[in-house]
Amino acid sequence: MAFTISPSPRIRRSPFYDATVKDGVVSFTAYNHMLMPTGYGDPEAEYDRLLNHVAMWDVSVERQVELVGPDAAKLAQILTPRKLDNLPTGQGWYVAICDHRGVILNDPILLKLAEDRFWLSIADSDVLFWARSIAGERKLDVTIFEPDVSPLAIQGPRADDVVGALLGDEALKIRHFQVREMTLQGIPLMVARSGWSLQGGFEFYLMDSSKGTELWDLVKAAGQPFNIGPGNPNPSERIESGLLSWGGDTDDNTNPFEVRMGRYIDLDAPDDVVGIQALRELHAAGIKRHQLGVLFDYTDTFGAYDTSSDVFVEGKHCGVVTAHAWSPRLKKNIGIGLLDISVNPGDKVSITLPDGRQTSGELSKFPLV
Amino acid sequence: MAFTISPSPRIRRSPFYDATVKDGVVSFTAYNHMLMPTGYGDPEAEYDRLLNHVAMWDVSVERQVELVGPDAAKLAQILTPRKLDNLPTGQGWYVAICDHRGVILNDPILLKLAEDRFWLSIADSDVLFWARSIAGERKLDVTIFEPDVSPLAIQGPRADDVVGALLGDEALKIRHFQVREMTLQGIPLMVARSGWSLQGGFEFYLMDSSKGTELWDLVKAAGQPFNIGPGNPNPSERIESGLLSWGGDTDDNTNPFEVRMGRYIDLDAPDDVVGIQALRELHAAGIKRHQLGVLFDYTDTFGAYDTSSDVFVEGKHCGVVTAHAWSPRLKKNIGIGLLDISVNPGDKVSITLPDGRQTSGELSKFPLV
Repeated sequence: MAFTISPSPRIRRSPFYDATVKDGVVSFTAYNHMLMPTGYGDPEAEYDRLLNHVAMWDVSVERQVELVGPDAAKLAQILTPRKLDNLPTGQGWYVAICDHRGVILNDPILLKLAEDRFWLSIADSDVLFWARSIAGERKLDVTIFEPDVSPLAIQGPRADDVVGALLGDEALKIRHFQVREMTLQGIPLMVARSGWSLQGGFEFYLMDSSKGTELWDLVKAAGQPFNIGPGNPNPSERIESGLLSWGGDTDDNTNPFEVRMGRYIDLDAPDDVVGIQALRELHAAGIKRHQLGVLFDYTDTFGAYDTSSDVFVEGKHCGVVTAHAWSPRLKKNIGIGLLDISVNPGDKVSITLPDGRQTSGELSKFPLV
Repeated sequence: MAFTISPSPRIRRSPFYDATVKDGVVSFTAYNHMLMPTGYGDPEAEYDRLLNHVAMWDVSVERQVELVGPDAAKLAQILTPRKLDNLPTGQGWYVAICDHRGVILNDPILLKLAEDRFWLSIADSDVLFWARSIAGERKLDVTIFEPDVSPLAIQGPRADDVVGALLGDEALKIRHFQVREMTLQGIPLMVARSGWSLQGGFEFYLMDSSKGTELWDLVKAAGQPFNIGPGNPNPSERIESGLLSWGGDTDDNTNPFEVRMGRYIDLDAPDDVVGIQALRELHAAGIKRHQLGVLFDYTDTFGAYDTSSDVFVEGKHCGVVTAHAWSPRLKKNIGIGLLDISVNPGDKVSITLPDGRQTSGELSKFPLV
């Protein structure tokens, strides 16, 4: 059943809104108090562009939380249990933000723009509040705000061709998660090699929201020889690739070790990092759940469920499938499972789908392809 | 232009979801990471029910943040610049939650359920994070979580008839913002005389999410003699009444004095209340903006804009209209203005609507009717 999304001043438009409407957006979600396009009416073509050509995505909802001032670096370290001593200027790292219990509140890219200036490029929760609260309580000398920055992602195997055509070879020297400030026909950008897919690509962080349509049209024109078209963070590709969706795949008790983020946690991070003590204890105790892929046995396609499936082994409930999608590559329904530590890749499981249907499947490591 | 809202595991369903679908919901918004119905296809009838009969609303998105434990009362006081010494058990008060700058982060009803147990009945922002952060930093002995509680509002002049039919005269003794734990055919409820309208009514805080359809159907059946029907927090009525929509009417710099919440701020609240020092300074400095109603001169109806109008006096920009609606009672377009302190009720203003149209209007105090 399809319902409309009603206009609300609480849910902001993106600078690319007009351009996406012109290009035929048909559906939205809300993310960080903002509208995010989720489809242009042809899911197969959108998937194909991402896998085999190049896609352009309005991901303005990936908001930045800027930390700037004398204590910005100190706050950045306090907010994340990953040691930041060796983070170079111009580089981004994937980090967890945890609460005092060691539970993940967000999984941003932390970008170091200068010794005293950072961006947290966030998932869908109010990190602005969290950062301000910690800074306020610890009386840090830092300004925290949401700057006028709106990412446009260029994703897929031909992304380098498009970016090279627009910004020249200099841009192509940017390595993974590096950022560089550049200008495209007068439009101020922070250019990063990043994006929420494993198909490669860039994100243009637009730094002047009045230029949204202009930037969109430039990227679109440069991409024509490479079959560029609009898209959005792709539910099928991200499950195939095992990318985490905070708030969808996590719950109010999820710690980083449960969702494959242990490698980004330094247990010897400073003692004043929020949650570090809890993380040390969680790590010592060992996890009770882990995240695995699910390959369903039945093959009729279905839409993206918005609720969980229940997973059983020999009649015993052993967790949930938090996200579902059809994988055109695998020609299978696939999912992300948050499952009891007792089950493993290769295990056969029984599954009750959100609509009540019974099916079965096999567990797998990520990536699924 | 109407777009669909796409299903996402990040945006949860309400316990009343199935019932609202059965009753013909056509549109949703997202609020507190959850779906909220915003219309059933007949806005005039929905408004009429609220004003002249009785309406039932799925307002599950009004999530609760529960504070429980030895330091719960201490934390409740630290979180809000309203002195809570005289808040009786079983009573709710409207409060502001402010950050260290004195900026409003949320405007919940704070319900005192016991000496050591409180609910913050919140607007659309992550108060759970904020409360946990403050409690964690101050090492308070309190548990903070989102309980399984989902409000169903019964609003309008016949609300007492419906609630009386369901729960008897005992329920009708509940006074404004009071709550009482009651049971309706085995369904556990916290019953409050409250709701986001000035038309009077109750909220049934459902405390078992498996009973959503059951509760919906009981209320619907009891309301038949009084012409009950589905609805939602009404954009027209709330602007007429001057009710605040946090995140829609507020921005990242809005303090309580700007939006008519000064009466809920006690400047002599304890010094350890977050933001109290900033609020004292803001109060001493005086406000630069205030919130007024706007009565537009043009009378063709329009939909709810999702962006702001600009307001001018003699060519000088003096603020914005943050929310727009058609008022069937006034037969006028109306709005909520966040405006320069130099303009006053009765002033004539020029307005540029979000679609670029030029119009004019007159400023007014709230309520507008």
